[in-house]
Amino acid sequence: MNGNITIALDAMGGDHAPGMVVKGAEIALQRHPDVRFLLFGAENAVRPLLAKLPHLGKSVTLHHTSEIVADDTKPSLALRTAKQSSMWLAIEAVAEGRADGVVSAGNTGALMAIAKFVLKTLPGIDRPAIASFFPTRRGESVMLDLGANVECDAENLVQFALMGDVFARAVLGLVEPSVGLLNVGSEDLKGNDSVRKASARLRDTLTPIHFHGFIEGDDIAAGTVDVVVTDGFTGNVAVKTAEGMGKLFSEFLEAAFRHSLSARIGYLFARNALRKLRMRSDPRRYNGAIFLGLGGIAVKSHGSTDAFGFANAIGVAVDMKVNGALDAIRTELARVSAAPSAPEPAL
Amino acid sequence: MNGNITIALDAMGGDHAPGMVVKGAEIALQRHPDVRFLLFGAENAVRPLLAKLPHLGKSVTLHHTSEIVADDTKPSLALRTAKQSSMWLAIEAVAEGRADGVVSAGNTGALMAIAKFVLKTLPGIDRPAIASFFPTRRGESVMLDLGANVECDAENLVQFALMGDVFARAVLGLVEPSVGLLNVGSEDLKGNDSVRKASARLRDTLTPIHFHGFIEGDDIAAGTVDVVVTDGFTGNVAVKTAEGMGKLFSEFLEAAFRHSLSARIGYLFARNALRKLRMRSDPRRYNGAIFLGLGGIAVKSHGSTDAFGFANAIGVAVDMKVNGALDAIRTELARVSAAPSAPEPAL
Repeated sequence: MNGNITIALDAMGGDHAPGMVVKGAEIALQRHPDVRFLLFGAENAVRPLLAKLPHLGKSVTLHHTSEIVADDTKPSLALRTAKQSSMWLAIEAVAEGRADGVVSAGNTGALMAIAKFVLKTLPGIDRPAIASFFPTRRGESVMLDLGANVECDAENLVQFALMGDVFARAVLGLVEPSVGLLNVGSEDLKGNDSVRKASARLRDTLTPIHFHGFIEGDDIAAGTVDVVVTDGFTGNVAVKTAEGMGKLFSEFLEAAFRHSLSARIGYLFARNALRKLRMRSDPRRYNGAIFLGLGGIAVKSHGSTDAFGFANAIGVAVDMKVNGALDAIRTELARVSAAPSAPEPAL
Repeated sequence: MNGNITIALDAMGGDHAPGMVVKGAEIALQRHPDVRFLLFGAENAVRPLLAKLPHLGKSVTLHHTSEIVADDTKPSLALRTAKQSSMWLAIEAVAEGRADGVVSAGNTGALMAIAKFVLKTLPGIDRPAIASFFPTRRGESVMLDLGANVECDAENLVQFALMGDVFARAVLGLVEPSVGLLNVGSEDLKGNDSVRKASARLRDTLTPIHFHGFIEGDDIAAGTVDVVVTDGFTGNVAVKTAEGMGKLFSEFLEAAFRHSLSARIGYLFARNALRKLRMRSDPRRYNGAIFLGLGGIAVKSHGSTDAFGFANAIGVAVDMKVNGALDAIRTELARVSAAPSAPEPAL
């Protein structure tokens, strides 16, 4: 199935790199045995790790570079000075056709800037967006933008909706995904100018999108829609707020089971079920945010993740390739931009 | 302690009004036996409810009006036409000194517009903000704005910070509350123009605020700061996202305990501890958002809440009065506006 898929890995990005990158590749290889990896990083740090994993070693080609992009490097500086960094070289492998996708747990801003420069944006897209899956009452949904664009106009939001729609069709396999625009209320008059104008345009019957309308914050976890569209400021805050709430509940739950002898006994009986609950809400399972709107597959892993989480981010890149998500987005954007465009609504 | 405190209640606002308003008042009276209520609403609907609660009846004065503000009434229309509504009359009771505060579960936009018009904003405040408590790992924090102002400039955010700071001192009893500005990253360069300018101004040593700096979404539940400041769009989405996560987690937990016989037995042993967990994270405990920056105490209850939640919203209004929060905010604003102001930072 995954024959001939090659993923480029920035071996030096992330709090626990390169250890968790190499171990993450090992875990990903168990799930996708035909995938090959190009690793970019410092030979003296990475080679000894590979030596301990001979099975992985056969699937890996290591490209040495001693340069890295630091976490606090500004994107503009990285663009000028980081051409020999592990991050840049990994992205370049995708642009040159030597890899089908790139995964990095490094500096998000630098990764986006370099990926945009090297892979270019798709025709019809002004700005790429960061998209991710998240768990809901109904299963999984997609949300974008999660932080690439802190200020968005209506046109950006419409493009995000279109990309999210095609992405949900290609990767989640949905026939007609519902798309919602995040707002402070569901009525037409609510919100700022950007969301009101974007909503009017998405209601236009010429767009191929099944537009649900405005949704509110509590609709995210409820799974009211398959695709949640928002600007990068709101999306970033919302997704991190949800992460924080997840941690808080886990802590409250642990405290509850330490509460009394009876509760401790209860825990012993319920621990298998609770283990499943933990797995179900494990944020590492949702690690791997996709940079949508680029001319190549680029996935950002959480900087603080471990090997298990990094393996999931690799899985996201593999799924993108296997499902032809990039080609689907490219085709759909070309189709929409060829269609007669609706007049701008007067608001 | 609470002698002579009178709270005006909009008996007709909320999905389950007037029943939950009257029952909520009954619950609140048990907690604050000296509080008196002015109820504004339809006599034929409210009088029979009061008849069943003779103890409450002695503490209530009912003012009949048959007019109500519907949930979908635009604020501007309510301002022009709703002068005899239960909502307006309840607010007016505060302006005229017949009540110490007002609580309504009705239309938020209309409530804010009428409260602003009738109670006026405090000197030095351009726009009132909606503030609420929420549970964190460390206890309780305050967050504002939760939706009164969908677009905010740096000056608005600075005013919110100041009001939130004084409010946390007065109601949470904190000596030097830490104040954080919600953003997409903690570095100085992150975010939009408003948050960067507001941060520069809050770092100014002339302000009395203990400014922590930027915080991210996951800092909300972590309790990193005592006061979370943000614009109304982001704040509304964040708080509703957190609510949605709370519901999702409760459902996942219930499903886990139904998972197997062993898990069901575990539940029996742990149920007291789990009941405490449920109480600890019960959103009704945090019902009651304060309109800060007005010349009177106005509290908005969730429209969908029940009597228990409404009683908590009444409790928020009572606490505001008992702690002299309004006078503290008024005094602090006067002190700050009298102080020499710092030059606007060049950014």
